[in-house]
Amino acid sequence: MSEPLGVALIGCGTVGGGVAHVLLAHAERVAQRAARPIALRRVVVRDPSKPRDPLIPRDIITTDISSALHDSSVQVVVELIGGTTVAKKVVLDALAAGKHVVTANKALLADSGSEVFEAARKAERTVCFEAAVAGGVPVIRALGESLAANQVTAIQAILNGTSNFILTAMAERGLSYSSALAEAQKLGYAEADPTLDVDGSDAAHKLAILAQISFGVAAKPHEIARQGIDTIDAMDIRFANELGYTIKLLAEAWTSEEARNAERGMRNKNNGQEPSSVPSSALRAPRSVALHVAPVLLRHTDLLAQVRGAYNAVLVYGDVVGETLYQGPGAGRMPTASSVVADLIDLGVGRAQRTFAAARLWSREGRGFTVEPPERVRSRFYLRLLVADKPGVLADITRILADEEISISSLVQHEAQEDGSGAPVPLVIVTHYAATGRFRKALEKINRLTTTSAPAVFFSMGD
Amino acid sequence: MSEPLGVALIGCGTVGGGVAHVLLAHAERVAQRAARPIALRRVVVRDPSKPRDPLIPRDIITTDISSALHDSSVQVVVELIGGTTVAKKVVLDALAAGKHVVTANKALLADSGSEVFEAARKAERTVCFEAAVAGGVPVIRALGESLAANQVTAIQAILNGTSNFILTAMAERGLSYSSALAEAQKLGYAEADPTLDVDGSDAAHKLAILAQISFGVAAKPHEIARQGIDTIDAMDIRFANELGYTIKLLAEAWTSEEARNAERGMRNKNNGQEPSSVPSSALRAPRSVALHVAPVLLRHTDLLAQVRGAYNAVLVYGDVVGETLYQGPGAGRMPTASSVVADLIDLGVGRAQRTFAAARLWSREGRGFTVEPPERVRSRFYLRLLVADKPGVLADITRILADEEISISSLVQHEAQEDGSGAPVPLVIVTHYAATGRFRKALEKINRLTTTSAPAVFFSMGD
Repeated sequence: MSEPLGVALIGCGTVGGGVAHVLLAHAERVAQRAARPIALRRVVVRDPSKPRDPLIPRDIITTDISSALHDSSVQVVVELIGGTTVAKKVVLDALAAGKHVVTANKALLADSGSEVFEAARKAERTVCFEAAVAGGVPVIRALGESLAANQVTAIQAILNGTSNFILTAMAERGLSYSSALAEAQKLGYAEADPTLDVDGSDAAHKLAILAQISFGVAAKPHEIARQGIDTIDAMDIRFANELGYTIKLLAEAWTSEEARNAERGMRNKNNGQEPSSVPSSALRAPRSVALHVAPVLLRHTDLLAQVRGAYNAVLVYGDVVGETLYQGPGAGRMPTASSVVADLIDLGVGRAQRTFAAARLWSREGRGFTVEPPERVRSRFYLRLLVADKPGVLADITRILADEEISISSLVQHEAQEDGSGAPVPLVIVTHYAATGRFRKALEKINRLTTTSAPAVFFSMGD
Repeated sequence: MSEPLGVALIGCGTVGGGVAHVLLAHAERVAQRAARPIALRRVVVRDPSKPRDPLIPRDIITTDISSALHDSSVQVVVELIGGTTVAKKVVLDALAAGKHVVTANKALLADSGSEVFEAARKAERTVCFEAAVAGGVPVIRALGESLAANQVTAIQAILNGTSNFILTAMAERGLSYSSALAEAQKLGYAEADPTLDVDGSDAAHKLAILAQISFGVAAKPHEIARQGIDTIDAMDIRFANELGYTIKLLAEAWTSEEARNAERGMRNKNNGQEPSSVPSSALRAPRSVALHVAPVLLRHTDLLAQVRGAYNAVLVYGDVVGETLYQGPGAGRMPTASSVVADLIDLGVGRAQRTFAAARLWSREGRGFTVEPPERVRSRFYLRLLVADKPGVLADITRILADEEISISSLVQHEAQEDGSGAPVPLVIVTHYAATGRFRKALEKINRLTTTSAPAVFFSMGD
């Protein structure tokens, strides 16, 4: 067996503690899989007096980052402190000191991928990040290695477990958004300040990473249109259900070719037929991709509609394979540790170094698609208004939609209460395909009508 | 860019044609991903006069296997002829000639894995086989690399698309087994002789391969208990549905520890809660694993119950990550080609060689678990009888079950026709957990009763 691979752990919180535990409790298994021992040399923490896993030898716990980064018995630095300031410095310093880096830090890669990867190439070291997207679900390897024969043509993913937990609770138990959020917080699935989870930012960071691997785009945050789940009312979940749909927060990437296929109803679906991929010769290298995070209405039978609770799932369309799905725990101590340790084993085996060199991520040569401006993306829309129960209201709204050349697929005006209360009545409109820009223009006009209770609520349709 | 990797394709039927097409139509993409060109040097066929993909240069098509195996510009031989006689000779000869081998041949690996892998180690060459299990779904990489931090504790998989297509058609459209099979044959999802698909043999071969990777067992065919779908009557699908279950043909591997957890209802399910893995320290290296292929009743909400049509899906329980699911097209020209070309790219990058050396599959050192004798495996059972509508019948049956210490969880006797026809009446019994051996003993006795129309129909319950 070869020389041990020495590891310094920077950060020993929830995930770091899990990684240390796996390396120490399962040292023999890990050594066997990596074809060499993986030795935990340093654990850098902020507060050394905190109680830790008893398996961690006291004398490797330190507060001194620099000594860990410059320990010559350390070949890999595992960054698990999160955030984009200290973490970035740690990662760049580690690379400069000649260490490989394993990180679960999605924000760092989404924000500074080019800088980090350029530094790694300069130092001839490797950066691994399976744990940065979808926790324990090995989607980085799937996109980068298993599907390497394919050009990915679309990705649809549930990447935020907190949001999916909340939406599942609303759909299955009829909870309001705020009760479901409160429950998620009580159970520890949502932070005290849940903003980054429920407004789509967390999923957008992860989508940016998937888009870099699949399309060679280094998408800036503002290029990823995002809409959160915080505007979803229990009544929308109910109306969607009546129409045969489930609302999920999806991170989506659509190449122009695949988007056109979807619009024409030509996409391969898990509809009980043999899956057949688009003949690869028919695809003439689509060069732009639309990226967004938004609540989407999925048919109850869609694979992603059936992903419940805090789970993550990634549905990938490849031009050779067709559609494949990857699902599992998207967060948590041990699932995330599973992915971090897999990266360490890959470094031990020597696979990761070769993958890193071949993939040329966040590099000039790796540049591929351009990002489609959000307003040009076409979709069907679910639009829910609260309107006054008066003559002419419907005429105003349908006129505004017609002016933007948006045609209506279905319309349901829910019954008014015949109590003369004059309470506004829910009106649900599902449109045919329309450009997002024109739909938003129509929305602005509708929101200015005095007969609607602004703001209108809208979501994309998944079909 | 490095030297080209030269490839000889042995067999150019459905899958071989797909592989050739991807290599030729997407040569630039493949070269970029592999960090070197992948050059198709030889295509060996039986009938050179057959029309082929026009992209294949005429002058590389040959009937001469030996010249391809000894071509010094060839580094990899792709075996796609299937079967276990000629294919085995081709693979062993290729290794002896110093070539790496890529194969989609599940029967060859299940039957002769030790011999093939020993030959590869002796020749210091690599064997890749992502396409041998679940077609386009990258489950070999998932088990061997992505989940390398885990000891797999259980696998539940839909590995035969033909059977799943038939069961889906029976469940969703009320077809009889024979009509569903006829439809599958008409659509090309089932062979004229469908025996190996519907009797569980095909799934058992694939399960043997997954069990080697996950548990280090070289299971012989007779060690994998198998029951096909050909005994499933439309009435069983209906009764299962009434009880809240869907019948799927599953290939399953259960370690004793995980099986006990399942029996105690302690397993992690996608039940809307945060997925939490079993604390790894609680698992004391379980050393035996039960393997079987059989129709299983799954709750409608189970992930695998929702896999429709010809799709494959593999649910893996890992002691660190918890459960992850991999789903997609399990067969077909382009999905299988996607996996074969991924293996070629891995060889080009140099990953596959390292994986092969580290994994020590089908080797003496890699030996792990023992195989649990099928009769010792414990399960709940669905038992459906056709009984005479006479006093005492129920007493006889329940007595037999009680004598084998099998207790009854639920029992439904469907109503007799009050026409005095004396037609037998369906009786459905669901048992509590019982050892398979004792259940089969009880079955034998029940089948000898003169008041039952033999043979009784039975399936395992998934919970």
